[in-house]
Amino acid sequence: MTVLILTCEQDVTADMVVAELDGNGVPVVRLDPADLPGPVALSGEYVHGTFRGHLSAGGRLVSMSGLRSVWVRRPGVPAAHAAEPSDWLTEESAQALYGMLRSTGARWMNHPDAARRARHKPWQLHLAQLSSLPVPATLITTFPQAAREFADRYPDLVVKPVSGAHPQEPPRAVPTSRVAPETDFTAVAFGPTLLQRRVAKRADIRLTCVGDRIFAARKAVAPDADPDEVDVRFATSDAPWQAVDAPSCIAAGVLAYLREAELAYGAFDFAEDAEGMWWFLECNQSGQFGFVQIESGQPIAAAVADWLATPGPAGAPANGGRAWAIEGH
Amino acid sequence: MTVLILTCEQDVTADMVVAELDGNGVPVVRLDPADLPGPVALSGEYVHGTFRGHLSAGGRLVSMSGLRSVWVRRPGVPAAHAAEPSDWLTEESAQALYGMLRSTGARWMNHPDAARRARHKPWQLHLAQLSSLPVPATLITTFPQAAREFADRYPDLVVKPVSGAHPQEPPRAVPTSRVAPETDFTAVAFGPTLLQRRVAKRADIRLTCVGDRIFAARKAVAPDADPDEVDVRFATSDAPWQAVDAPSCIAAGVLAYLREAELAYGAFDFAEDAEGMWWFLECNQSGQFGFVQIESGQPIAAAVADWLATPGPAGAPANGGRAWAIEGH
Repeated sequence: MTVLILTCEQDVTADMVVAELDGNGVPVVRLDPADLPGPVALSGEYVHGTFRGHLSAGGRLVSMSGLRSVWVRRPGVPAAHAAEPSDWLTEESAQALYGMLRSTGARWMNHPDAARRARHKPWQLHLAQLSSLPVPATLITTFPQAAREFADRYPDLVVKPVSGAHPQEPPRAVPTSRVAPETDFTAVAFGPTLLQRRVAKRADIRLTCVGDRIFAARKAVAPDADPDEVDVRFATSDAPWQAVDAPSCIAAGVLAYLREAELAYGAFDFAEDAEGMWWFLECNQSGQFGFVQIESGQPIAAAVADWLATPGPAGAPANGGRAWAIEGH
Repeated sequence: MTVLILTCEQDVTADMVVAELDGNGVPVVRLDPADLPGPVALSGEYVHGTFRGHLSAGGRLVSMSGLRSVWVRRPGVPAAHAAEPSDWLTEESAQALYGMLRSTGARWMNHPDAARRARHKPWQLHLAQLSSLPVPATLITTFPQAAREFADRYPDLVVKPVSGAHPQEPPRAVPTSRVAPETDFTAVAFGPTLLQRRVAKRADIRLTCVGDRIFAARKAVAPDADPDEVDVRFATSDAPWQAVDAPSCIAAGVLAYLREAELAYGAFDFAEDAEGMWWFLECNQSGQFGFVQIESGQPIAAAVADWLATPGPAGAPANGGRAWAIEGH
């Protein structure tokens, strides 16, 4: 059984996982959907009530029924490298590739449907609540009056985008920043705004989940850090990421979260406060892990490789996928 | 409990359903996501482990916890009517609106995730097979040799797009057409191509499912019809759509299909051959029903209104939605 990795050519993180799979003798096909049609080719036949599909890439032909798993790492846009690219060719190629892969029994890290749903920040916050993870008080609103009342109750606030990253090419991260006292909230009427109680943090936590394996890492905030530096991605801390045990209630919470979200992989960000409480900030279903592994020494790439090479539980849906069991048929 | 309808201003089909709901005294809020932010406003608060959201439209304020159902009819692009529209504002507004609606207990017709998945034609064909619906022999390929071999086995073929509609504004339907004998298939290497055995049909069937209610209609092909007219959308038949009973195996098949696809609504197209067999062509999760209702007299709008106004089965996930039940929490 073969592991299929969908990613672009330059991807050091994928290289780390491929090295692990190669070391374990697991067959791997790595391809970029941008190379379909052309260097990547496919064919699928629906005859006599069954489906038989094949993929060709790098001179290798694999049967889709022989795919153990699909890792959606950092795939290019289908048909982007075609001689005459167009939106139409992209749509046709995307439908052909992903439509067929959806018809296989492979398990996904992560399934495209689950990945898409998981990007919704408002949904993340509510799912974290339902998973018993501590969520800082948050408001998403276009009502200036609601924003003012929230700021009265929680005077120390940060503001961040509802959606995460700015949708330009390449996407640009928009930093989380503090809300100044006496802010005029009139402008929230012109765009949904996310306000959140600021967690006075003593450390940032990155918790990476691979299947049911948990890798938590902690990066201490310097005692003299500027309290306006609320976004770890833009902070200047020299402290390294260090492996740390997750509290048991947090561990149970993140596993419940991923189970309900049908995700096989998730990178959680928490803020640790002065009492040691971990506050949920977000879960990025495609979050990087290379920088954490390098600093913390945690074997995350090996865990990803293990998950991809392992058969799913018999009779149960593959994590993140749909079960193909229709009653009475 | 309120029914929320997401659609644009000019939508006669929505008008038909609103009239039914009004007649039954069911509260309805109808809004276009294009009007957010502005005429449509929202607010959601995540405090003390719970979510409370509100929507405002047309001078009415509704609690999101009071939504019975959401009908995703023909919604505009979020923020499209804003004073200064942008991709960024659209993404922020879409996340805020749909991210919050996903956190409610409302049932969906259809859930955005299920709707998105259901558009994949290759996935449709395989799901139809698994649902024991007859599927004409089909090939989707970028291998010219595979196309030639398929044409040898099935000399009477049609070609159609993999993805359905051409992605221009407004989307343009690409007609299904016959493949001429001795066709040179070299060009399939430049784009995935869908070839399907032509069904020599004596009628087109449109089968509309609303929940578990089935409305089948039949439009006879004229005896002197041109056999090159394979696409009912472009045919010149004067025959009306007439209500007809679905064979029991077809009825069981479409219900299995919708259950597995997590769709509350689906419009199936079949071709009826000379032996009376119904061959699955596609299932459009957002297919129109107004023209069928007008010609066949079937009460489809009333069925949609009934479904939207009815509480989902207690303890079970709403059709097309996700259950918010996390074990042990």
